[in-house]
Amino acid sequence: MRARVHVTLKSGVLDPQGKAIGHALASLGFGGVNEVRQGKVIELDLTEKDPESARAQVKAMCEKLLANTVIENYAIELQG
Amino acid sequence: MRARVHVTLKSGVLDPQGKAIGHALASLGFGGVNEVRQGKVIELDLTEKDPESARAQVKAMCEKLLANTVIENYAIELQG
Repeated sequence: MRARVHVTLKSGVLDPQGKAIGHALASLGFGGVNEVRQGKVIELDLTEKDPESARAQVKAMCEKLLANTVIENYAIELQG
Repeated sequence: MRARVHVTLKSGVLDPQGKAIGHALASLGFGGVNEVRQGKVIELDLTEKDPESARAQVKAMCEKLLANTVIENYAIELQG
């Protein structure tokens, strides 16, 4: 079973990487971009077949390692 | 209109960051993880309202700045 985890900065947390991308886009002539935020996506290939326990496993991974829950949100997507 | 771009390494391209996460998970006691790949997700808030031209705009951004198309794939998702 494959899982995809999105880790994004909470709104209100300054995102310098996103700001840098925004500035770079503007200087390349791409107007009309109001805001840019950058996050991470982590794709896991798990041996676990049961969706519920896979989700619980990935949630534990997020809480312990993948996300800094003080400043980041995470979202888990299971695929097949 | 909001757009979300996923930038992931092409398969076959070595992903040391993903490998490091895999090792860290294993040393934390999370077994059953076959493979980990890490990518980026970039969220853009565009003034463009028309989905077709928004997609074309974001595609140009990906080709020029957001992704290194030699080693990375990108996927564009438009939201509302």
